[in-house]
Amino acid sequence: MEKAGIDVLFVTDPANMNYLTGYDGWSFYVHQMVVLSLDEPEPVWIGRPMDGNGAQVTTYLKDENILDYPDDFVQSDSNHPMDRVAEIAKSRGWHRKRIGVEMEAYYFTAGAMEALRKNLPRTRFKDARHLVNWVRIIKSRKELEYMADAARIVERMMRIGIQNIEPGIRQCDVAAEIWRTGVAGTRKFGGDYPSLPPMLPTGSGIAAPHLTWTDERFKHGEGTALELAGVRHRYHCPMARTVFLGQPPKKMRSAAKVVLEGLQAALDAMTPGTTAEEVEAAWRRVVSRHGITKESRIGYSTGLNYPPDWGEHTISLRPGDRTLLQENMTLHCVPAIAMEGWAIEISECVRVTPKGGKPLCDFPRKLFVRR
Amino acid sequence: MEKAGIDVLFVTDPANMNYLTGYDGWSFYVHQMVVLSLDEPEPVWIGRPMDGNGAQVTTYLKDENILDYPDDFVQSDSNHPMDRVAEIAKSRGWHRKRIGVEMEAYYFTAGAMEALRKNLPRTRFKDARHLVNWVRIIKSRKELEYMADAARIVERMMRIGIQNIEPGIRQCDVAAEIWRTGVAGTRKFGGDYPSLPPMLPTGSGIAAPHLTWTDERFKHGEGTALELAGVRHRYHCPMARTVFLGQPPKKMRSAAKVVLEGLQAALDAMTPGTTAEEVEAAWRRVVSRHGITKESRIGYSTGLNYPPDWGEHTISLRPGDRTLLQENMTLHCVPAIAMEGWAIEISECVRVTPKGGKPLCDFPRKLFVRR
Repeated sequence: MEKAGIDVLFVTDPANMNYLTGYDGWSFYVHQMVVLSLDEPEPVWIGRPMDGNGAQVTTYLKDENILDYPDDFVQSDSNHPMDRVAEIAKSRGWHRKRIGVEMEAYYFTAGAMEALRKNLPRTRFKDARHLVNWVRIIKSRKELEYMADAARIVERMMRIGIQNIEPGIRQCDVAAEIWRTGVAGTRKFGGDYPSLPPMLPTGSGIAAPHLTWTDERFKHGEGTALELAGVRHRYHCPMARTVFLGQPPKKMRSAAKVVLEGLQAALDAMTPGTTAEEVEAAWRRVVSRHGITKESRIGYSTGLNYPPDWGEHTISLRPGDRTLLQENMTLHCVPAIAMEGWAIEISECVRVTPKGGKPLCDFPRKLFVRR
Repeated sequence: MEKAGIDVLFVTDPANMNYLTGYDGWSFYVHQMVVLSLDEPEPVWIGRPMDGNGAQVTTYLKDENILDYPDDFVQSDSNHPMDRVAEIAKSRGWHRKRIGVEMEAYYFTAGAMEALRKNLPRTRFKDARHLVNWVRIIKSRKELEYMADAARIVERMMRIGIQNIEPGIRQCDVAAEIWRTGVAGTRKFGGDYPSLPPMLPTGSGIAAPHLTWTDERFKHGEGTALELAGVRHRYHCPMARTVFLGQPPKKMRSAAKVVLEGLQAALDAMTPGTTAEEVEAAWRRVVSRHGITKESRIGYSTGLNYPPDWGEHTISLRPGDRTLLQENMTLHCVPAIAMEGWAIEISECVRVTPKGGKPLCDFPRKLFVRR
């Protein structure tokens, strides 16, 4: 905050709120925040009264640092929760300081910023987008434990998914089994909801990766790309695999080989001191030899998050990203290739180590074929 | 739009995008929008290239009206997708018109608005918050069919939830069965992901309604409030019930009676021409006779939505909301009472009819007791 010229930070990204205070709950559908002030010993949580109870349960904050706005400010067109935040700011002298705001946090709406500016016309707001996200980039031992637990969960989810995909089975029934497996977790520890639902685009829809399941039935002669994540205490371990029912076309089998070779090259490149774009270049060198190009990024930092994304909005494995990788960063490397009517998506969630990206999961890395 | 003085509307709320074009996909974790211009025959979809494929599959739009921004604008600190939107606006002359923006749509960030203003400094932006939401308030026959399907699904979810809650069973295992049931749906039609996960606060955590499940086990002598929704084609039917393991304390049983009486009074009041606040007053009259007050709203409009909320952000059943109810509005009436260490939450999702609020579900309305 000092380096960024910020005295008081309004944290509205739910993952950042969790990281700083432990706060956990599905309450980001109403406005809420955690405030860090360089002058105060503890963060301050501000939200809806009934969610203050949740803050008492999940955070280490003293009761006096859990504040709320009147409940009739919820989804009201006449009062904005930020009106109350502005009052609190005035009472604590924050309004005379440089306040950082997360301009690109999903739930920090344009209207929230407008309400703050209107109530605090003389305050100097600074864009603090992703400031806390970048602090989260290297994972602690405890965080890596949660992600290892999440890896055990996603291995089960993927196994169940692949087993259940058969000609004549409805997509929704496979999605249902995957959900159950992910939420139940293992006998030792339970699972959590993922920040994106199971994605299982199939057949000709496979090139539209963010469509969710339908009632349609899986068909012989079609491929399905499964992209799933296990979750433990909001820490994700994502994994993608592709399944084909029947004999895959030859070009699909050769594309799978190229993806696997390119993925391995990317993982090998993920050593401390390498840049994000160099990792992408390692992949690109392999696939361009085979005449394949891919415009979108091949991976991103992952770990702690809430819907709608399990990416951390920091590192992207793509040209132009010169972030130096460091040990114990965690990335989802997900190089997909989509062509007319089919796609190959095979990924690994890895930890950066001196030997390269070490997969958190132990799961066969191949094109799955079910005859 | 004409009444609101708007020529061009930038629609960023995923439910509104769906309502206007059919677009459906879990892609709201990147910036996207649908643009309505009074001068153009069809809406325009703008998003990430790979999601343009999804727009081709799910919308009625002509290919020429599905536009995208370069993929490396995704979660980039140097380029904003709204930079591209501004270019498109200039090329179509929208920048000289009055542009409406949804200031309170979850995914329309403060940074998105800032990027638009920077690129289009002379454009007059108008706050169009909830403009489309209010258009959605009365449900068509087709929408009511989807909600009836969702009701069949949530009846199953609730039955499974109540059956599975037993002393010694982990919360995550009950949540897992509820998820599976909701996503699988019925034999005739599949289910969809709900916009909030199953909520099942239990024991002393019951007063913190938005905490999600843990690995803890259900205990004899404790109550659990289940709040769930079935979903069909993104249309929700929510339902809440409370379960107690063992003999409920006397004050809890009498509170349940009060809640049921108050809920019935509210439903009876839900006739066309009644105001939202009069419905709340009908509930309040009953419960205040028993010395109970509740500060938060007792219900809201529901139907089509995406995470993080299944409410439609229009009607709230609370003092000050003078919206006149009309036939075929759909509301979730969810009057909960929370005390130290316990709560009673029993709800109905209803359609407004001349005879009052007609529940979409057919499910016993009581405090469930499992001995």
